[in-house]
Amino acid sequence: MSLLAVGTVAFDDIETPFGHAEMAIGGAATYITLAASYFVKDLKLVSVIGDDFPQAELDYMRSRGIDLEGLQVKQGEKSFFWAGKYHYNMNDRDTLDTQLNVLADFKPVLPDSYRDAKYVMLGNLTPAVQMEVIRQMEKRPEIVALDTMNFWMDTALEELKEVLQKIDILIINDEEARQLSEEYSLVKAAEVIHKMGPEYIVIKKGENGALLFGADQVFFAPALPLAEVFDPTGAGDTFAGGFMGYLASTGDKSFSNMKRAVIYGSAMASFCVEKFSIERLKGLTGEDIRSRIARFVDLVHFDAKI
Amino acid sequence: MSLLAVGTVAFDDIETPFGHAEMAIGGAATYITLAASYFVKDLKLVSVIGDDFPQAELDYMRSRGIDLEGLQVKQGEKSFFWAGKYHYNMNDRDTLDTQLNVLADFKPVLPDSYRDAKYVMLGNLTPAVQMEVIRQMEKRPEIVALDTMNFWMDTALEELKEVLQKIDILIINDEEARQLSEEYSLVKAAEVIHKMGPEYIVIKKGENGALLFGADQVFFAPALPLAEVFDPTGAGDTFAGGFMGYLASTGDKSFSNMKRAVIYGSAMASFCVEKFSIERLKGLTGEDIRSRIARFVDLVHFDAKI
Repeated sequence: MSLLAVGTVAFDDIETPFGHAEMAIGGAATYITLAASYFVKDLKLVSVIGDDFPQAELDYMRSRGIDLEGLQVKQGEKSFFWAGKYHYNMNDRDTLDTQLNVLADFKPVLPDSYRDAKYVMLGNLTPAVQMEVIRQMEKRPEIVALDTMNFWMDTALEELKEVLQKIDILIINDEEARQLSEEYSLVKAAEVIHKMGPEYIVIKKGENGALLFGADQVFFAPALPLAEVFDPTGAGDTFAGGFMGYLASTGDKSFSNMKRAVIYGSAMASFCVEKFSIERLKGLTGEDIRSRIARFVDLVHFDAKI
Repeated sequence: MSLLAVGTVAFDDIETPFGHAEMAIGGAATYITLAASYFVKDLKLVSVIGDDFPQAELDYMRSRGIDLEGLQVKQGEKSFFWAGKYHYNMNDRDTLDTQLNVLADFKPVLPDSYRDAKYVMLGNLTPAVQMEVIRQMEKRPEIVALDTMNFWMDTALEELKEVLQKIDILIINDEEARQLSEEYSLVKAAEVIHKMGPEYIVIKKGENGALLFGADQVFFAPALPLAEVFDPTGAGDTFAGGFMGYLASTGDKSFSNMKRAVIYGSAMASFCVEKFSIERLKGLTGEDIRSRIARFVDLVHFDAKI
């Protein structure tokens, strides 16, 4: 089925203990759509870039089946830019620079062919932009998932709460879940957030895996224990792309399928961190993904003998 | 099979956001043996207390099948005492007071009937005391597991490294594994520690579960997502007790059985944190434990369909 993704398409300057990448390709929508492209062929991207974005990268995205009709190109302007430096532990990072550029007055416009998408992934952007995308949909999609961040809870909480009422799945990290719910326990946080609108809540815990909460159900997916994490940038968006790509490809909204989607999202994220930028997400094979999934199966498998 | 446990038997003053317990029963060997008592009936405890320890608690331990012949009682002296306060997040805690008392010059003496124990759990104590227990064994036990802490890495690293060469399984938390190995990645940390002696390394991550590393194998067990963590004191020791109790009861050292042991340890720890002190570890039934194990099975179960 069709998957529409909105989010940034951007440049990142990334410093890690392993090296430095300048003007690397980044952005939530970039990671989401690339990860999803391994599962679904009808992919629609909504975003904005300046005239500085490399044509070769856009061509590559098109070659992965990503429809760029909804990608606005602003002549004479610059693409969104983020610079960050990771600490030795690879979990904490400092933002060194943020240049909104084209994002400052971004108004999403959905091409007609986008408006009947069945699955929608609202990547991290202002809640107002996320709401505008929902408004432009012709009818209620099958599933709308949303990512957000602390910054919007600090600066646009009411708008965020409005858009939460319109979505099915919230995908956030543990600290964001705690801030949004004002509960430390993630079980209680999920209960509070559930009442704000989303039927399902996915709480990402980085190297500590991810929790999926349904009405009365909970599922835990580990992260793969890795000897080297090369660059965590985009891992959360890659998770979201793998998760929603798998859901859209199967068209199955059952909890047991949603569990599989969390595992597929985790598998795609485990590739993402192995190289800088989107490099590792290029040229994966079906066999790469299947053997990665098999490692997740092994990692948690035990015979309880109860 | 027989399980010998050495560690503290002590009093704890515990402050959590939920309340305050004064002179609560605590100590590593207390938690280890109580947890193990649900799996194995031949249990031997080595420790030291003053004449201030309640007879009723000792009677209760005996009623659980715990042999106290190796528990020294020092007349006119006081038992080990620890006071701590948990932060709101229940993961961090401050030590408010530590009174070694009888522990200051503890010299373990194994009764003859202890010296052929097949399984040995060396709870957190000075590496010298742990080594002394190994020395007094009549022959090499089937499995020796050891817990330790940062304090001994800071103050007695060489003695700790000596005892690590004599054991099979090291059970420590993530921060301890990082300090001991000088590696941040837990995969690399386990590789480094493996070379120090232990064949298996269990790395406990508190609310983020536990990893079991074998030579070329890894297993991940989640912690149960809990709405309330009432008192985390003793959860790590309870894990070790459930883990070693299960291993001793089955007498099976295969990796697949060790995975089950990690799950049983995690299940026992999930009970421990539900009430202050050892309260929740009293009066559990086989059905309580089986249904808790079933929740772990559900929590991570997915059908990969690959």
